[in-house]
This record gives sequence, structure tokens and C-alpha cells, in this order.
Amino acid sequence: MSSYFTIRWIDDTVQMLDQRLLPQEVVYRTYIDYREVASAIYEMVIRGAPAIGAAAGYGMALAAVHSKATSTEQMVVELNNAARTLLAARPTAVNLPWALERILSQVNQNLMLGAQDLRALVLNEASKIADEDVETNRKMAMNGMPLVPDNAKIIHHCNTGALATVDYGTALGVIRAAHESGKHIHVYVDETRPRLQGARLTSWELKQLRIPHTIIADGASGHIMRTVGIDLCLVGCDRIAANGDVANKIGTYNLALVAWAHNVPFYSVGPTTTIDLSTPSGDRIPIEERPEREVTHVGDCQIAPDGANVANPAFDVTPAKYIRAIITERGIVMPPYEQNLKSLMSV
Amino acid sequence: MSSYFTIRWIDDTVQMLDQRLLPQEVVYRTYIDYREVASAIYEMVIRGAPAIGAAAGYGMALAAVHSKATSTEQMVVELNNAARTLLAARPTAVNLPWALERILSQVNQNLMLGAQDLRALVLNEASKIADEDVETNRKMAMNGMPLVPDNAKIIHHCNTGALATVDYGTALGVIRAAHESGKHIHVYVDETRPRLQGARLTSWELKQLRIPHTIIADGASGHIMRTVGIDLCLVGCDRIAANGDVANKIGTYNLALVAWAHNVPFYSVGPTTTIDLSTPSGDRIPIEERPEREVTHVGDCQIAPDGANVANPAFDVTPAKYIRAIITERGIVMPPYEQNLKSLMSV
Repeated sequence: MSSYFTIRWIDDTVQMLDQRLLPQEVVYRTYIDYREVASAIYEMVIRGAPAIGAAAGYGMALAAVHSKATSTEQMVVELNNAARTLLAARPTAVNLPWALERILSQVNQNLMLGAQDLRALVLNEASKIADEDVETNRKMAMNGMPLVPDNAKIIHHCNTGALATVDYGTALGVIRAAHESGKHIHVYVDETRPRLQGARLTSWELKQLRIPHTIIADGASGHIMRTVGIDLCLVGCDRIAANGDVANKIGTYNLALVAWAHNVPFYSVGPTTTIDLSTPSGDRIPIEERPEREVTHVGDCQIAPDGANVANPAFDVTPAKYIRAIITERGIVMPPYEQNLKSLMSV
Repeated sequence: MSSYFTIRWIDDTVQMLDQRLLPQEVVYRTYIDYREVASAIYEMVIRGAPAIGAAAGYGMALAAVHSKATSTEQMVVELNNAARTLLAARPTAVNLPWALERILSQVNQNLMLGAQDLRALVLNEASKIADEDVETNRKMAMNGMPLVPDNAKIIHHCNTGALATVDYGTALGVIRAAHESGKHIHVYVDETRPRLQGARLTSWELKQLRIPHTIIADGASGHIMRTVGIDLCLVGCDRIAANGDVANKIGTYNLALVAWAHNVPFYSVGPTTTIDLSTPSGDRIPIEERPEREVTHVGDCQIAPDGANVANPAFDVTPAKYIRAIITERGIVMPPYEQNLKSLMSV
């Protein structure tokens, strides 16, 4: 386990590491209201598709546990309200609706229970979501590890470590497992503008794991491939469409195209909960547009003229063509993705 | 002319707009010692290949004008010392050695002159370098303008405007000329990490020119091409090798590969002084590595863990293959570059 935790349930509250303050400060926040959890997701106190799923689950648990409902009907109404609020927090990562639907589905299958039993049921399901995530990440890491050669130089985008999950990580989990198995690796860390999850979070995690790494500006990946040579790229995912298109942090698509031009294998790592067969292609994945201030300011430092016009898409879509394989806890999925993702999900 | 100036000679001093403080503050610095000019180039008070060339020229003029030399021999020794100091300021842009060599060549052809006449000669040559740059930029703009269709959406990297030159600009000069000719254009401004010349300088210039524009993170260019559609990319250049490989601000190569994947024309705009036929290919162009702090901090805001390992190449090389054409003041150069650049330079 990591020396820090991303999210946990304790004494009928949810605690989260405030990732906005890393790497300067390690501050945990305590939440008792699911609406605060929704805000925390939107404000990116917690981020990363699997971690958002876990936070949504625990948000539902807060709604249940602190509800004053005495009847099943009232509890169900309140839980549906809570789910709507949490769902609206961020649109792109499918793990958010997935976790909410999983909990609501459990509730709907147990309408014979009273309000108090539903409280226990929701909390139990939320805990399972969180616990399973760690196990899932370890399986993904084991599945992906053989793709990392000894002495590999890797480019990684955004943050996909313990901080993006409940623990261990997705793409960074693969990197961690390779390192722990004794392989000598070096990670080039895309700083990942505008929120700088690479510079702030990934380098912080790699430092603690003692994995050799170098932070680079996002625009430097091509130069590094040309001059240093890169063996593979590993990224996470926020939603995988039925055709294998992958939505992930803005900048992922650029990195995939740069890797493609250099014939560098580009892998996306994510749990099957990130696969959304109901979305046929990446063009249908909603892309969150975030506040302009994320681009015009870094901390309190203003880096653009007053009133500058900004586009700040938080995610992009990498067409399946550019993705060598998708690494999941159930195995590695290769093209053709349409067919192979469907097979994987029907197991 | 612009309402601001990048560099000018006045009362035996050089004045420069301190570009490190833009867009928040418009502050002009006054230099009387060529060593201060060398520091200003290194510290990026002034930047942009043509502007660096002009600054080097005026640095030589300061060395000449403020020299206490009474003999031709002593003046020549001092000017050669000054050239060495200025040359060491930054390695990639070829305009720096070009300007120094032009002045030293004039000096060497006029060794019959006394120290006082050499002072006048050097200042005159430095002024010519600066004046010619503005004229050159206007010619490039006219040559490039037909490549910009009406209603064009353009991605631009780094800063290539009046601030990167003595006035008017190179790639941004083409954009400006297209706008002034009545074409409706929209510029997507790569913020250009790590020094943020796009967010800080290009958007500031475009705002004053009233040219519609949107700042984006460098990693968002692929997403913008996929979703909004881009008609062309325009970038500057710091050195063009004999085979057409272009060294330019880090991130240029990534943008070129992203444009290539979308079949978006990618143009490099630069004066013939940026063409270096003595460098056979981009692999031979020295790439400046700059301080880690440019990546780990934005202003006073620290964005990476203490002691983080960073690679900060200031430039990259875009292979000629990815460049649709090179726009110069003598005309538009198309592939095959080896042959066509040689023809251009022999005119």
C-alpha cells in the first residue's frame, strides 16, 4: 500500500487527499455531505476516472448514512437526487455513472428492505467498489508488465497512479509493477497542462516509489522520441467507446500521434469499468470544457492578458487506430477492438 | 508600426522591452554595456531569432561606441571579444552568429579605418540589420498571405510577432497581413510551455491588433484539429538546415506531426538569414538546454516536487518532410528543399 491514501471511509465520513495542493502540501479533507463530494470532484480535489468512481460511491454512502429518511420510498428518492447531483460533477469519465448505476441497481433490487438496511446496503456497495478497484489495478499491472521491456524508456501522460485510483494505479500501476519486478525503467513525465497532473502528482508519486523519472513539457515528447528514443507510451483512460476510441486527459491524442510517427507502441490502461459499449465511438463521448482560469493562471500567477479568450477542453479522444493495445484487469485487448471489447465484456 | 517596440538604439544606448514581464507590465530596459545585452538575450528579456540577431548587432554597436580603444588593432580585439560573449548567449538561432559575422566582416573589410570611424561603421551596420529586418518581415508577410484562405482557422506556436523581430513579425506577420487585407481569420494560440510565449506574448500582440484568437494548451492542438478543424499551421524558425529541417521552439515538432496526421498544411516562416546551408541537417543543429526552473516554476509558483529531475530543451527539430513550404522574403520555398534552398540562397 502507498504511504498516502486517495480516499477512504472513516466514521461515517469520507476523507480525501486534496490533490490541488500537491506536491507542496499533503492535506486531507473530510466530507459528510454528498454535495460537498460532488463539489470536490468538480474542483478536482480528487480526480482520475477510477478515483472519481470510488468518490461517487462514497458520496452515495454519505447520502444514505446521513439521510433522515425513515421509509424506503423516501430513501430511494433521496438516493436518486444524490445520484443526479454527483452525476453532474464531471461528464467524461464513465466510471462516475457506472458507480452510481451500480449502487442504484443494488438499491432497486432490494426495495423490500427498510431505510436502515438500505443505508448498510449502499455503504457496503460503495466499499466494495473501492476495494475492488485496488484488486483490479493489481491485476492490470500484472497483465501490462510483460509489455514493458527491461531498460525501457516510457512516456506517461497525466496522472494514473494511486492518486487517480483508490490505490496502486492504472498506467502508473504497470510502471510500478515493472519497477518492483526489478526492471530498470525511466519514465518521462508529461507535465500535462493545464492542470499539471504530471508535474505535480505523477512526479510526486514516482519520487516516493523511487522510480527514475524526468519531467518534460508536453510539447517536448517528440523531441525526446527523436533524440533519446522511447520504447513505449502508457496512459490511462476516462472512457473507452465500443470501437476502441479512448477519451483521456487533453494531450493524450497529441502524444498518440507523436508516438505513431515514431512507431512507438501506445498503450491505454484502464479497468473494464471504463469501457462503455453503449457509446459507439469517441465522437459520442462528451468532452468536458473547464474554466478558462485553469489556462490563464498557474496558482496566483496570471500568464495571459486580462480577458483573454481560452478553450480548455479537459479531455480528448484518441482514435482506436493509434492504440496498440488496451490493458484491462481481464487481459490485454488488441485490435479489432469492436469485436474484442465486446468479447471481453461478455465474459 | 506597432504601438510598442522590441528594440531600438537611442542616445548611444540600446532599449528593449522586457518580455519576461508581459503581459502584466510594459517595462523598457536601457543597456550601455554589450555584456548586459548578452545577459538580456540569455535571460530572454528579448527573444525570437530575428530580434536576437538585431540585439547582437546593437550589442556590437555598444561595444564599439563605448570602447576606449584609440587604435584600429585594439578596437578589433575588443569587437572580437564582444562577439564571443554575445555568441555564447544562445546557441540555436543562427541569426545570432549571422549578425555578428556580418558586422565583423564589415570591420575586417575596413581595417584601413581608425577607431573612431570603425565605431560609426559598426553602429551603421547594426542599424541596417535592424532596419532591414522590418522590411524583410513585410515582404515575407506579402509572400505568405496568399496561403491563408478567407475564414481560415490557424494554429500558431510560440511568438513570432513584432516582439520576436524588430517589428511586424514572421509567422505572425503573415497572419497580420491576412487580417489587414480583410480576410476573416481566427488564430488558435499554442500557449507554448515552458516559457509561455504564446499565452503571454502572442495573445498580447493579437489583442492589440484586434485579431480574433483563442489560447489553448499545447496538448490541445490535436483535439482542436479533430473537432473544430484547422486550415493551416504557421510557425517561425530559429535555424533552417540545408535539407529543410527546421529548428524552432520546443513543441513545434509535435504540432507538425499532429498537423501531418490531419493533412493540415504546416508552414515555417523566416528570413533567409535563418537559413544555414553550412548545417547539412537538423541533427547538427545545437539544441539549447535551459534551466530546470523554467519547467518547475511558473512565476513564483512551484509546480513540481523539490529537486525534481527535468529535461528542458528549448528547441526541437522538425524534419523537412513535415513542412509543406518555407516562406521567406525572397519567396516561398517548396520541396525538394536541398535543391530549392540552395537556389534561393544563390540568387
